[in-house]
Amino acid sequence: MTLSPQSLPSLETSPIPGLVVVRLDRRDDSRGFFKENWQREKMLAIGLPDFGPVQNNVSFNADRGVTRGIHTEPWDKFVSLATGRIFGAWVDMREGDSFGATFTLEMDTSVAVFVPRGVGNSYQVLEDATAYTYLVNAHWRPGIAYPALALDDSTVAIDWPIPLGEAIISEKDQNNPGLDPSTAIPAKKT
Amino acid sequence: MTLSPQSLPSLETSPIPGLVVVRLDRRDDSRGFFKENWQREKMLAIGLPDFGPVQNNVSFNADRGVTRGIHTEPWDKFVSLATGRIFGAWVDMREGDSFGATFTLEMDTSVAVFVPRGVGNSYQVLEDATAYTYLVNAHWRPGIAYPALALDDSTVAIDWPIPLGEAIISEKDQNNPGLDPSTAIPAKKT
Ligand SMILES: Cc1cn([C@H]2C[C@H](O)[C@@H](COP(=O)(O)OP(=O)(O)O[C@H]3O[C@H](CO)[C@@H](O)[C@H](O)[C@H]3O)O2)c(=O)[nH]c1=O
Ligand SMILES: Cc1cn([C@H]2C[C@H](O)[C@@H](COP(=O)(O)OP(=O)(O)O[C@H]3O[C@H](CO)[C@@H](O)[C@H](O)[C@H]3O)O2)c(=O)[nH]c1=O
Repeated sequence: MTLSPQSLPSLETSPIPGLVVVRLDRRDDSRGFFKENWQREKMLAIGLPDFGPVQNNVSFNADRGVTRGIHTEPWDKFVSLATGRIFGAWVDMREGDSFGATFTLEMDTSVAVFVPRGVGNSYQVLEDATAYTYLVNAHWRPGIAYPALALDDSTVAIDWPIPLGEAIISEKDQNNPGLDPSTAIPAKKT
Repeated sequence: MTLSPQSLPSLETSPIPGLVVVRLDRRDDSRGFFKENWQREKMLAIGLPDFGPVQNNVSFNADRGVTRGIHTEPWDKFVSLATGRIFGAWVDMREGDSFGATFTLEMDTSVAVFVPRGVGNSYQVLEDATAYTYLVNAHWRPGIAYPALALDDSTVAIDWPIPLGEAIISEKDQNNPGLDPSTAIPAKKT
């Protein structure tokens, strides 16, 4: 059987090299919806890399205002929502011309984002009871160190819809440093 | 770094050969929770097969009472919840001694089930806004045929918490046949 072209998700590029937005084929019916959140063959057909996920994480957010990030773990991420709505924000932490470049996007359950390693990942929750789900291609380990960026860094100046003073933020995420080109992630490490 | 044993999920067998229940390490905090929903290395360590997922699906259920299944697609499934609560029900459709064996389990976000191919998969939603997420190791195609079993089959007699007369069921799922040993899935096909 051949793949009918209309069932392919569509892909949009962003100002961050390698970070792409995927519009999914969400099918709504009287029960709710069904979606292929990630489908290897179709993702390859639209140009995503064959990134080989080995782990699927879910972070559930009880309240609007939860803000997580900006984390730059050494693996690629395919991020999306099982329910709810977020404001996603990404910062390029790789050395080179695009260091410090940002991209933001309001996401509901019909959209996913592929985030290449070396790009800081974060989000702010816009609706109570938002479930964020993502695939990664390397395993997290307790105590693993990775670069993180202050949510209120004044250089990248992310325009959070909910002021950070009203946000729910982990203790860990309240102590991250500002943008510093001397800590850019070398190309060989990405 | 070695894997700390306490971070491994735990595994329980069931009356259906190969169908196992996984208790996940869900970490609750002031934001909500975080969980490794599937982690290849840990799943292998506790005895799950290296099933090689190529697709991640999400089915969102607006209302308590939605009932989906009983579907026996030709691939393995690793099923879990991103939010909400369900009553899961499985029926062995493979020829042999366990043909017709059933297993049911109330699931919240801290539990997952590995469902081997040849076992019919279904669930009833116990809470509004329940998001079901699962990984499979072969791609669905439009029009693909697979065995399905009537939700109200009197032989397997699943004890649904919500009477099927009050359930929300797709048209397709209202026309499935009853249990018939002559249509058992041959071992070579599983
Ligand atoms: C990333 C990760 C974390 N954990 C544990 C460590 C903590 O006990 C708990 C929460 O970890 P945190 O680091 O606070 O999670 P969070 O701030 O949400 O950040 C992670 O999850 C975010 C999504 O929520 C990702 O965007 C980030 O890249 C990732 O670092 O889960 C795991 O058990 N496995 C993991 O893979
Ligand atoms: C299974 C599957 C379905 N679809 C499309 C076909 C329909 O337009 C829509 C919903 O499909 P249905 O077959 O009605 O979905 P549903 O009754 O929920 O059953 C599926 O999803 C269930 C989980 O919701 C699984 O337990 C079943 O095994 C699976 O067959 O999504 C896809 O685009 N990709 C898929 O992989």
